[in-house]
Amino acid sequence: MRESYREQLDEILSDLVAMSERIATAVRRATRALLQVDRTEAEWVISSDEQIDQMRADIDARAFSLLALQAPVAGELRLLVATLRMVTEMERMGDLAAHVAKIARMRYPEPAVPEDLRGNFARMAEVAEAMVLGVGRALQEKDIDDAEAVQQRDDEMDDLRRSQFRLMLGDDWPHGVEAAVDVALLGRYYERIADHADAIARRLVYIVTGQLPEEDAVTSS
Amino acid sequence: MRESYREQLDEILSDLVAMSERIATAVRRATRALLQVDRTEAEWVISSDEQIDQMRADIDARAFSLLALQAPVAGELRLLVATLRMVTEMERMGDLAAHVAKIARMRYPEPAVPEDLRGNFARMAEVAEAMVLGVGRALQEKDIDDAEAVQQRDDEMDDLRRSQFRLMLGDDWPHGVEAAVDVALLGRYYERIADHADAIARRLVYIVTGQLPEEDAVTSS
Repeated sequence: MRESYREQLDEILSDLVAMSERIATAVRRATRALLQVDRTEAEWVISSDEQIDQMRADIDARAFSLLALQAPVAGELRLLVATLRMVTEMERMGDLAAHVAKIARMRYPEPAVPEDLRGNFARMAEVAEAMVLGVGRALQEKDIDDAEAVQQRDDEMDDLRRSQFRLMLGDDWPHGVEAAVDVALLGRYYERIADHADAIARRLVYIVTGQLPEEDAVTSS
Repeated sequence: MRESYREQLDEILSDLVAMSERIATAVRRATRALLQVDRTEAEWVISSDEQIDQMRADIDARAFSLLALQAPVAGELRLLVATLRMVTEMERMGDLAAHVAKIARMRYPEPAVPEDLRGNFARMAEVAEAMVLGVGRALQEKDIDDAEAVQQRDDEMDDLRRSQFRLMLGDDWPHGVEAAVDVALLGRYYERIADHADAIARRLVYIVTGQLPEEDAVTSS
């Protein structure tokens, strides 16, 4: 009985890993929609967000019944509760990728991101995608080093966001108000994807060590 | 034993209600900081966000030990799991109120919101605060009608956000790029506070009825 309980827990974890890969794909394709002004990619991300929601509902239901079926021991309980929260954060990352795609679609066939900010967004997207994939690896291996590597990349994201603001709020922003509003929101979406990855990484450290890292924040920042 | 378990659950719920009131206060004072250009209010919201985080940590720990101490029956389990999630959403609302206050502080002594958008933001803040208080009432009474009333107000928020965009992206926006960026982000923060209240209201309906409402979304939208 315990044996099969553990197996079910492991299955839930590998589904979480699969979900993180699915989200990394959504982030990558949303970015392609944005920077290569590709409407088909935008539509794909938007319409397939439902599948991510479905993955969430499925993992949720199974974690919940494991909780209900059998009183889990302490470590398992911690893992199940963390799972119920991580899956919510992951779904949210999917929503944010869809938000990026929606802005790309709204401006199509014009690019939403001005030429001189494409490099900045390409790097933001790269960091976000790497963080999401890092979360998947850390989940798979239950590896603290992977989880900590994810957390470290969050600073890069903050730097990239600051450069955006410097560009937009400088005296020589030539792209007008609409582009500035798009850039501000798009930057916020990528930043939030990174925040969620960071929060999941923090939970993972907690699961593995039983200790919350110094900063006790959850979906915070 | 069961009796005291139930009592502990009820205590956790009334702490959640207290937390929602605390957040409504943060939203109100952050709005005062923003619209009355009041730096003291901004500092208060920013520095006291820690207390909200502390409330979260405390409720979290108690809900977790109730889960661990005694195998809860189905309805209690649902309530405990929902609590662990609602408290995360509430903490996040507190963060968002602090984000509003930070923009107010950053622009001080200038107002971050141009005169012609103050009415719009005042209404946004009113809706957000009412939704947060409505969540508290619904939690206290475990009342579906209260929860549904919260959900209905979310549409108002969407309308207010749309008016902001119309103003900013019209041909005659005279306030420049910086104000547009501030308005876009501030509008997003209020909208997200409303989204979280909406998500909590939806969870409450689930707790009371055992059924998720048609839209199965969580922190979604």
